[in-house]
Amino acid sequence: MIRIVILGTGNVAKHLLGAFKKAKDVEVVQVYGRKNSVLESLGSDYQTTTEVSSLKQADIYILAISDDAISEVSKQLDLKAGLVVHTSGSVPLAALSKKTKRGVFYPLQTFSLDRKVDFAEIPICIESENEADTGILKQLASAISKKVEYMDSDQRKALHLAAVMANNFTNHMYYLSSEFCSQNNVPFSLLHPLIQETAKKIEDLSPYDAQTGPGRRNDRGTLKKQKAQLKSKRHKKIYSLLSKSIRKTYGKKL
Amino acid sequence: MIRIVILGTGNVAKHLLGAFKKAKDVEVVQVYGRKNSVLESLGSDYQTTTEVSSLKQADIYILAISDDAISEVSKQLDLKAGLVVHTSGSVPLAALSKKTKRGVFYPLQTFSLDRKVDFAEIPICIESENEADTGILKQLASAISKKVEYMDSDQRKALHLAAVMANNFTNHMYYLSSEFCSQNNVPFSLLHPLIQETAKKIEDLSPYDAQTGPGRRNDRGTLKKQKAQLKSKRHKKIYSLLSKSIRKTYGKKL
Repeated sequence: MIRIVILGTGNVAKHLLGAFKKAKDVEVVQVYGRKNSVLESLGSDYQTTTEVSSLKQADIYILAISDDAISEVSKQLDLKAGLVVHTSGSVPLAALSKKTKRGVFYPLQTFSLDRKVDFAEIPICIESENEADTGILKQLASAISKKVEYMDSDQRKALHLAAVMANNFTNHMYYLSSEFCSQNNVPFSLLHPLIQETAKKIEDLSPYDAQTGPGRRNDRGTLKKQKAQLKSKRHKKIYSLLSKSIRKTYGKKL
Repeated sequence: MIRIVILGTGNVAKHLLGAFKKAKDVEVVQVYGRKNSVLESLGSDYQTTTEVSSLKQADIYILAISDDAISEVSKQLDLKAGLVVHTSGSVPLAALSKKTKRGVFYPLQTFSLDRKVDFAEIPICIESENEADTGILKQLASAISKKVEYMDSDQRKALHLAAVMANNFTNHMYYLSSEFCSQNNVPFSLLHPLIQETAKKIEDLSPYDAQTGPGRRNDRGTLKKQKAQLKSKRHKKIYSLLSKSIRKTYGKKL
């Protein structure tokens, strides 16, 4: 049985709590949060505290808090034993205080409070400073996910930025598309099946091979016409830059 | 029973053939293609021809051919009756010859030869010049899809461009992300679940509400650090422009 304490009450903390609740051989012995009102909203399943000084003994302390707070909170912890980990993609392991054993437990997913996610499919990237700690983190991650990956802080930072491109920027493409739809009185929902298929395709094909469209074909006539169709300067600028980037990817002269 | 002739042997033609094969009350009476060898690859289920002059009588002739060829092929058709439709998002109805009744039958999806798609979920956008033709096109589309939408040529052209943003540009984001992953020795496949969730999210939330990340939060520190992490000029330029566009979307001063 791995005994854990969760520090935090936000999106990531709540999703982790939900996942650990169903996991075998893991016991959440306490949840720390700054506000009692928020802690109470978690239900009566957990022992809670608002005092860092009142933390119970556990094997692993999971800091599921904002990036900026990680370093500071880790310094405040006064623990005799236990491994302290954070859950951030972009913060290095070294940001944690040296007073305790330290590591990283980063679930690579976008979490919204009101959406269920299948934790078994979410990759968990772990990092630690010795084999014993890696062992227990692997065990904890495997209790909730099928995909556990060891990586160092630099790799994780790169993965986090790759996630910004694949998630934040992709979602912004959806937004620009929806904006253009409403400007032209067509329902954006018609594009939902296309969007799902575009995402599914890359599980079988590399994004390089999956690319289609006028940029890939270097169809200058269509590229010119489509740019002219766009009304806003912002849309035109993005259309040009991304079309150029696609053409360049496939070795076309610009 | 609606009798149809398919003209074309490419991706769209093959997917349509597959869908009509399973449809009730639709009979594919003939397939036209330029090459016998390609027509033979369709199997022995269909009567075929390489001669436009040998087309059988049918209710609807579907031109599933490249955009550039639509106008020319429609002029060559010498039909006594029947409705001629094309399957293109960007070509107006008026590109078809006036010699016959004409219309549009545009399935909004990205087709790859070796990927199965569920036609029932693919929106089909139809257009015609009178109510009777609209009626039969609706009937034909409903035989293979649950989502049939009437729209004029301008709306369809806009929808097609919106699809370029939601599909071509989105896939290019996947590509840039995968490129950055391999530059940094992390497996892109770790991002697959995130990519699927990003796509699924917008079936419940608008892309406006679904947006997350440093651009949305206007977190200038992270934006600056992440841009510095990127190695290629192209990545930096795209990162800047899209981050700016996201910040602008949420009313941040640049």
